[in-house]
Amino acid sequence: MPTPDLLLPADPGVRGLARELYALAAPQPIISPHGHVDPAILAEDRPFPDPARLLIVPDHYLTRMLLSQGVPPARLGVPTVDGSPVEPDGRTIWRLFAAHWHLFRGTPSRLWLERTFADVFGVTTPLSPATADAVYDELAARLAEPQFRPRALFERFGIEVLATTESPLDDLGPHAKLAADGWGGPGGRVVTTFRPDNVVDMEFDGWRTNVARLGEIAGEDTATYPGYLAALRARRAAFVAAGATSSDHGHPTARTLALSPGEAAALYDKGLRGEADATDAEAFRAHMLLEFARMSLDDGLVLQLHPGAARNHNRWLYATHGRDVGGDVPQATEYVNALAPLLDAHGNDPRLRVVVYTLDEYTFSRELAPLAGGYAALYLGAPWWFLDSPEVLRRFREAVTESAGFYNTAGFVDDTRAFCSIPVRHDVARRIDAGFLARLVAEHRLAEDEAAETIVDLAYRLPKKVFKFGESS
Amino acid sequence: MPTPDLLLPADPGVRGLARELYALAAPQPIISPHGHVDPAILAEDRPFPDPARLLIVPDHYLTRMLLSQGVPPARLGVPTVDGSPVEPDGRTIWRLFAAHWHLFRGTPSRLWLERTFADVFGVTTPLSPATADAVYDELAARLAEPQFRPRALFERFGIEVLATTESPLDDLGPHAKLAADGWGGPGGRVVTTFRPDNVVDMEFDGWRTNVARLGEIAGEDTATYPGYLAALRARRAAFVAAGATSSDHGHPTARTLALSPGEAAALYDKGLRGEADATDAEAFRAHMLLEFARMSLDDGLVLQLHPGAARNHNRWLYATHGRDVGGDVPQATEYVNALAPLLDAHGNDPRLRVVVYTLDEYTFSRELAPLAGGYAALYLGAPWWFLDSPEVLRRFREAVTESAGFYNTAGFVDDTRAFCSIPVRHDVARRIDAGFLARLVAEHRLAEDEAAETIVDLAYRLPKKVFKFGESS
Amino acid sequence: MPTPDLLLPADPGVRGLARELYALAAPQPIISPHGHVDPAILAEDRPFPDPARLLIVPDHYLTRMLLSQGVPPARLGVPTVDGSPVEPDGRTIWRLFAAHWHLFRGTPSRLWLERTFADVFGVTTPLSPATADAVYDELAARLAEPQFRPRALFERFGIEVLATTESPLDDLGPHAKLAADGWGGPGGRVVTTFRPDNVVDMEFDGWRTNVARLGEIAGEDTATYPGYLAALRARRAAFVAAGATSSDHGHPTARTLALSPGEAAALYDKGLRGEADATDAEAFRAHMLLEFARMSLDDGLVLQLHPGAARNHNRWLYATHGRDVGGDVPQATEYVNALAPLLDAHGNDPRLRVVVYTLDEYTFSRELAPLAGGYAALYLGAPWWFLDSPEVLRRFREAVTESAGFYNTAGFVDDTRAFCSIPVRHDVARRIDAGFLARLVAEHRLAEDEAAETIVDLAYRLPKKVFKFGESS
Repeated sequence: MPTPDLLLPADPGVRGLARELYALAAPQPIISPHGHVDPAILAEDRPFPDPARLLIVPDHYLTRMLLSQGVPPARLGVPTVDGSPVEPDGRTIWRLFAAHWHLFRGTPSRLWLERTFADVFGVTTPLSPATADAVYDELAARLAEPQFRPRALFERFGIEVLATTESPLDDLGPHAKLAADGWGGPGGRVVTTFRPDNVVDMEFDGWRTNVARLGEIAGEDTATYPGYLAALRARRAAFVAAGATSSDHGHPTARTLALSPGEAAALYDKGLRGEADATDAEAFRAHMLLEFARMSLDDGLVLQLHPGAARNHNRWLYATHGRDVGGDVPQATEYVNALAPLLDAHGNDPRLRVVVYTLDEYTFSRELAPLAGGYAALYLGAPWWFLDSPEVLRRFREAVTESAGFYNTAGFVDDTRAFCSIPVRHDVARRIDAGFLARLVAEHRLAEDEAAETIVDLAYRLPKKVFKFGESS
Repeated sequence: MPTPDLLLPADPGVRGLARELYALAAPQPIISPHGHVDPAILAEDRPFPDPARLLIVPDHYLTRMLLSQGVPPARLGVPTVDGSPVEPDGRTIWRLFAAHWHLFRGTPSRLWLERTFADVFGVTTPLSPATADAVYDELAARLAEPQFRPRALFERFGIEVLATTESPLDDLGPHAKLAADGWGGPGGRVVTTFRPDNVVDMEFDGWRTNVARLGEIAGEDTATYPGYLAALRARRAAFVAAGATSSDHGHPTARTLALSPGEAAALYDKGLRGEADATDAEAFRAHMLLEFARMSLDDGLVLQLHPGAARNHNRWLYATHGRDVGGDVPQATEYVNALAPLLDAHGNDPRLRVVVYTLDEYTFSRELAPLAGGYAALYLGAPWWFLDSPEVLRRFREAVTESAGFYNTAGFVDDTRAFCSIPVRHDVARRIDAGFLARLVAEHRLAEDEAAETIVDLAYRLPKKVFKFGESS
Repeated sequence: MPTPDLLLPADPGVRGLARELYALAAPQPIISPHGHVDPAILAEDRPFPDPARLLIVPDHYLTRMLLSQGVPPARLGVPTVDGSPVEPDGRTIWRLFAAHWHLFRGTPSRLWLERTFADVFGVTTPLSPATADAVYDELAARLAEPQFRPRALFERFGIEVLATTESPLDDLGPHAKLAADGWGGPGGRVVTTFRPDNVVDMEFDGWRTNVARLGEIAGEDTATYPGYLAALRARRAAFVAAGATSSDHGHPTARTLALSPGEAAALYDKGLRGEADATDAEAFRAHMLLEFARMSLDDGLVLQLHPGAARNHNRWLYATHGRDVGGDVPQATEYVNALAPLLDAHGNDPRLRVVVYTLDEYTFSRELAPLAGGYAALYLGAPWWFLDSPEVLRRFREAVTESAGFYNTAGFVDDTRAFCSIPVRHDVARRIDAGFLARLVAEHRLAEDEAAETIVDLAYRLPKKVFKFGESS
């Protein structure tokens, strides 16, 4: 068990207050309103693979750091696009990783892994080149035990609800299985999220094929724009039936645009003809955010917007290993003008709920907090991806609270593929929030009883409400 | 009385130093060099209205926060543009506000109100839904007493000088009354500020009418550009006679531009013909900043520049309730290139004094501090509006001091409409400065006697000097 | 001797840890991988001039601060472009400076000077207007002693290696003298750096003349682009022979560009004909960064990129006193798109080493850390120039460590002209790093033994390795 004071402020007085506040947050159930866990893991409940394949190979935070020091991802077992061979041996991968463990000093990856080893698997041997094999063996032994299978861990983690993310082209089979087992469906413990980027973004590989497939799945004619909208509505209904309470949109920018139906249809047709350029694609994405906001007013899905990633910036990595393996980087993101069309149309309607995320912390006090503090529909998502770290979680509260308060933020969102890291990620956020609230108390800016109420709101009640899990909105 | 340690750093050693430094700043008179208090309040010295109408209805920080959680401003009594009815009852408004008091945890509004209740009105009952009526009644009782009338409070607040803000079209009647009563005029306790946006900004509602009216008031022919300049000069002279020591300019950007008289006249004429587009309007505003700098070299007015607000971003709010009710948000603001024409022309002239503000803290160390630390004419205004908060006041010192020092900053400016909140706003700045200086001392970066001199400079001597109140410039 | 706790965190517990970590860093030799010390100082080893000429006149941090308060640089002895007279008397300059000493409260200049007085010269009288003469006399007395000559100080400072910076047009005479004396040459204590801006930047004063001169020196025909490249390669070889391990590039932006040889030659020819405009010059600079990266793959020089200065922003200052006297300011700098062509070409090649600096801290977490944490060739240089200060050094670690770790940063770089300030500048960085690491330990994020290893890496081993001083790369 790591120290109970992990991440709490060092000043003894503030630490004492933070401990008390954290003690209130720690036992709260986990609400994980957005992430990328594969639902098949929980549907099938099979044992996890070996430690390297579970914890290293699929974690692009880890493989990109080693790449930054000259270790190619193939040596860590990351699959190649062309199927050319990569390191196959889990233990070899693990040893290579352990040899570079010092690179992670001061990073959240270090903290997440260390806590996962200790708190999830009970492995407290500090990782180092010398202990690599021992740690590997201990982890492997645990992974073979039944109490380390996915559903058992889910229970132990205290997860009340976990939302995975699927595309409209997904058949939601694992979610059907989960529902049949009493784990999924509306109000269930594992639900889905509607993520339509691959049928919305004309620059996505295979967009036209995807759109045709969307029509088939939905039984609508996506050769026309009205048919396309009908197909999206139909899939949203299917996702709602599988428990979804939100959609998610990963766009290069936060731009929104209000096109007339005729303009939108013309753009859509241009895309289908293969004639849309980058400007058209951007306009269509921007317009579709308004369409999705309108659909949300009908079906109640919370609209999550994740803008600002320069995807596949590392082109060699993309060419060699494909998407989502560490080749993306953030870029400057503008919100004030970009969101204006959406906010003009529906920003003052409290029935709409838009949760906006960022990879650009240099918008916290200038754009995000003033917008969230002035529009009924807008909530701020937790610091995301490169920013999901103790220092930024702290800077987020320091920068947004004064304009947006606590109650225009959406609570912590882990956004992770790494199922076993879910508890520690939420724990980190709770500890940082406890430290921030403790400082407000220590500086006589907030009464202790109010801080106590707030920490529980942030950890549990607020995400549950904002993402519409089991409370009236 | 709230704790004496409000906002001071939690570490006991630093807090002890901060207490000593704050004790030097606390008794200093208040210099309020820029704000939006209605001078009629002090000219007429009538009792204030009920607590809701005094403290809630006109405070857009408060009404926008409730709007952000779905409470329409009409329910808080905010007047409508078309005169359609809004909540008329002060107590009902107050109860609704109190029901949402938790939204303000961690915000400066919370701190300002709490201190105003306690320090100004002696009301220490914590506000909550349950105590709403009691707090309202206590405040209402105080407001009926003569010692809570504006001039009595002005005395009690220890305000040495307060500058209000008027347009060149204002007849300065309240200031004449104040001068007649021995409160106003040059060197007086209540003075004005020359704010010409409504006759400079071609995009301002009614600009052409305003310009015509400017001509009438000034006795100049504003149908020509030279006449327009003459009218502005005449009004500046009238403002100087009413005690003004500064002008103020609220522009969308910080852009400045050096047009020839002929070019400027052509642009002006285009505007009068109703043919100016957004680019023309921006160019004219930019050019006029140079004209005003030249006028300042003649009449000595300090030039304040407040750029970076995206005005009326919330268009529904603007359409329903008009300007200045919480619908503005900040936007990214560039200074290095924008100010270059002005600085080229007069930046090294110590007779000119330009105080620049920002809504974009992400320019502090990159642009504002290096510019202020390298041009004789430039001073940095205090963090403003969305940034006038404990956390940002601290970040301001942390980010600008190393390049600009303390003495290229202008001291605290409250910029408020809320007369009763003036003491606490200045108090917050003094406490944050005390904490920052205490840390410098604790880290052995500054001797304690120098910190003691600096805190008094920041609280009193520096704003008095920079804004030319009673000291030679 | 100033307090041993200078700049260490105030909290007693954290301070205790920081002291222990700092004690490990303090005795490490100084690696100064980039700076602007005149090598003739060390080659000739003559006594330094009077205190004002040594410490005030050439330090643009100091003269720009006094300019910002209306003191013209001529009064501080800064030479003029046209040779018109400036204050000639060292003592007069010193007194004027001392009269404005309070302006530097809270700045790194204050700290550097104070420590230089005390630690280098043993002068502990606090500077003030009253003590100006006494401090001047004490310093002057020391400067006359043999143990205060450059080489003696170099030894006393514990400098292991110092890299100066020269243009390809420089004959490297002082470096030849140093090599002859056993101080310079490959692996020597004083080496050079290849800084080709004056022959690369078509907007540089006299670029065409410089290019012709480059050809003469290198014995190549720079009338053609291939000859130009050959000349650059030849000069790089000469610099390598004089001990250089890196090149340095000071560009307005971070833009890189991959032109074909034909395109590059056409642009070069256009420049030679005097027909290149600003866009051409930017493209050529951008392209040449790729050429230099290719040359680095051949000759092993580390490529340092210093972008983001708006040079000669203060045009009066430039016209009156020339370059590098305080008239530059930072501007917003973009890296993600700008570096993409270079990173596409060679970013994943660990044989290349690119160290990127910034004047724009608002790229730390958004751009620089994610890039450095994802490309093998990229390292982050220390905070530079306006950002070389305690507060920013701390913010740098807080903002970049979580995405880039410690080992994608390059260690401290002083980049200074002020030889006597080298020890204190490195000391400041070591103290801030000790404080940051101590906080990680206090918050249980890092074991103490790992922090101990890391602080020595940051102070000594990392810069030595990254800049290829005596360790295999």
